[in-house]
Amino acid sequence: MRVTLLNDPTLEYIDNAIGFCWNKGPYGTGEEGVARIDRVCNKFKHASMLRFTSYIFELEMSTSALLEFSRHQVGINLAVMSTRYCTKQNPDLITVELSNNDKVNTLLLKHTADIVQFIVDNPTVSNDDLKLLLPQGFIYRMQVQFNAQSLQHFFNMRSAKSAHYHIRDLAQAIYDTLPPEHHFLFDDCMSDT
Amino acid sequence: MRVTLLNDPTLEYIDNAIGFCWNKGPYGTGEEGVARIDRVCNKFKHASMLRFTSYIFELEMSTSALLEFSRHQVGINLAVMSTRYCTKQNPDLITVELSNNDKVNTLLLKHTADIVQFIVDNPTVSNDDLKLLLPQGFIYRMQVQFNAQSLQHFFNMRSAKSAHYHIRDLAQAIYDTLPPEHHFLFDDCMSDT
Amino acid sequence: MRVTLLNDPTLEYIDNAIGFCWNKGPYGTGEEGVARIDRVCNKFKHASMLRFTSYIFELEMSTSALLEFSRHQVGINLAVMSTRYCTKQNPDLITVELSNNDKVNTLLLKHTADIVQFIVDNPTVSNDDLKLLLPQGFIYRMQVQFNAQSLQHFFNMRSAKSAHYHIRDLAQAIYDTLPPEHHFLFDDCMSDT
Amino acid sequence: MRVTLLNDPTLEYIDNAIGFCWNKGPYGTGEEGVARIDRVCNKFKHASMLRFTSYIFELEMSTSALLEFSRHQVGINLAVMSTRYCTKQNPDLITVELSNNDKVNTLLLKHTADIVQFIVDNPTVSNDDLKLLLPQGFIYRMQVQFNAQSLQHFFNMRSAKSAHYHIRDLAQAIYDTLPPEHHFLFDDCMSDT
Repeated sequence: MRVTLLNDPTLEYIDNAIGFCWNKGPYGTGEEGVARIDRVCNKFKHASMLRFTSYIFELEMSTSALLEFSRHQVGINLAVMSTRYCTKQNPDLITVELSNNDKVNTLLLKHTADIVQFIVDNPTVSNDDLKLLLPQGFIYRMQVQFNAQSLQHFFNMRSAKSAHYHIRDLAQAIYDTLPPEHHFLFDDCMSDT
Repeated sequence: MRVTLLNDPTLEYIDNAIGFCWNKGPYGTGEEGVARIDRVCNKFKHASMLRFTSYIFELEMSTSALLEFSRHQVGINLAVMSTRYCTKQNPDLITVELSNNDKVNTLLLKHTADIVQFIVDNPTVSNDDLKLLLPQGFIYRMQVQFNAQSLQHFFNMRSAKSAHYHIRDLAQAIYDTLPPEHHFLFDDCMSDT
Repeated sequence: MRVTLLNDPTLEYIDNAIGFCWNKGPYGTGEEGVARIDRVCNKFKHASMLRFTSYIFELEMSTSALLEFSRHQVGINLAVMSTRYCTKQNPDLITVELSNNDKVNTLLLKHTADIVQFIVDNPTVSNDDLKLLLPQGFIYRMQVQFNAQSLQHFFNMRSAKSAHYHIRDLAQAIYDTLPPEHHFLFDDCMSDT
Repeated sequence: MRVTLLNDPTLEYIDNAIGFCWNKGPYGTGEEGVARIDRVCNKFKHASMLRFTSYIFELEMSTSALLEFSRHQVGINLAVMSTRYCTKQNPDLITVELSNNDKVNTLLLKHTADIVQFIVDNPTVSNDDLKLLLPQGFIYRMQVQFNAQSLQHFFNMRSAKSAHYHIRDLAQAIYDTLPPEHHFLFDDCMSDT
């Protein structure tokens, strides 16, 4: 579970956007501006202002977690390392995120080893065939962009106790990577905080 | 690869929408109305009118194909049978869509049989652990809704020769399920037609 | 403020979608099915299921209300009678939705009469020029589609006491047009109910 | 028609995203990287990569142009100076973008002067009433964000000869504000270039 924040997100354009709506101008991203952002976006639910801040991460997640993203449709962009182009080229990149059960893990690791060995033994088989063997524990590498509104929604859904532990851990790891001065936007979205 | 069209899609509201924009009223869904829809939506690219027709399918697709849907974000809704709730309850539902390579298929079927046997032998293991074993050939069952615009986009992307054969076959199967009188909307989007 | 529901919306595909996720099958759109929809979509917040029901309206709204729609971006389709094509062709269609203030209304009606007279006096002036005269009270006619999720959001935002009275009245008129057996989806979204 | 680019847009994350998909790494935003972006995003139509670059503008547009934005729904954020809060507070901000017809302009300016005078004479009338008088030539001030994909779509639609001249001029003014090294992304979208 590796998550790296790539860009340097700023609250400047949320502050400026709010200033526009009421013709009050920017308050800055210090205490006064943050208080206004919190009031307008969180308390008064003018959440569309939150789209003016973007977060770009490099991260890894299991196939299981990636599948959940087919349900998060707005305000999220994914650029995923394609198993259609990169599977047999890098058998050492075929790694898995383990489950919480040792017996499952034993079988998961055995299947993964089978696949790597199969690739070594059958170098001419195409990736489009090979990829169908990859288990849902398989780890995808990607670049992901959220805006602050879609990230709030992601945390609300995926930090919940009812979420699968892989995506729940991912949500926590993303939260931990954020600049602390952005945490006020998301603290109420984290089910454990 | 089973695809069933569940609803009875109508062009009536596209026709009515176009009539509204130019204050011409509806032309109906016969020859005159279809000609206007083709002219306005396809030739003049007023594609937003196409969102007034929806198609709801019951279908199956491999995990590999479902993963591609994390990139189709607008105008598509999925309701997927959850492997978090339904895996060990129905080991007989653990089926796979085969690859184009016999050796891959042998390994894919062996791994699938391993998983089914593991479930039988370990009835207390949770689905959240078990699901990580499922291969990308695993078949998901779901209800999917497109509007006519998002379906055009889906066909444009996924009927292409460069697409994976699972999702390419799915695109063709969806096309074949459409009422023939809707095909004029999509013929130019199918790379083989 | 005229609102007509054009289609015959059904909860059938929400019911079916929920049945899919848990492999329970449909419960129907009677008491048992409605109870499950209410539980899953409203109480457990699986709101994406709500996208499987669509509502298509023919309605009128002031320019002021239409401008608010530039902020409702997901799950809403508009087909608006274009002032670029239909202004001088139908001067009798140039009508306004009045304000709550008599003096404003006097000026609004005077300006509107000026515009109609100008069109009569200057039949060669183009619509692209003329339309810039139209006031925000001007009434647009259109076909609008919501899905049940976007309609919930619309009601939440626009039935609020803080909303402009034109769009607030519109929200109430839309609610009143819904089949009573769909009201359970929206009652908690209406600020007055 | 004033347009100012507020942020410092970078192609870095498009480059990085493309590098991820094929596991080739970044090429940088120099000649080699730009050539790859052009090839992948423009020639091969992997346009979703373009969402990783955002442009934030401060700009003015007529009500007529703003109304068109109710049809651009994906990848665009608006923060508009609200006429519900700022109309009578700043009568000097009630300015209009003129039409191409002198007679229309005479009437437009007369109506605008009427409104300003009305506000001076009736200081207790509420903005929610007053705003219904504002003509479609009225200029809104706002902050707008596009990503590179939605900006391509905007230029394709709104630089066309068939577009209203206000939004067409806006499209050109936005294009002119872009850093020249980003123009390769948009040159094919401008109908005059």
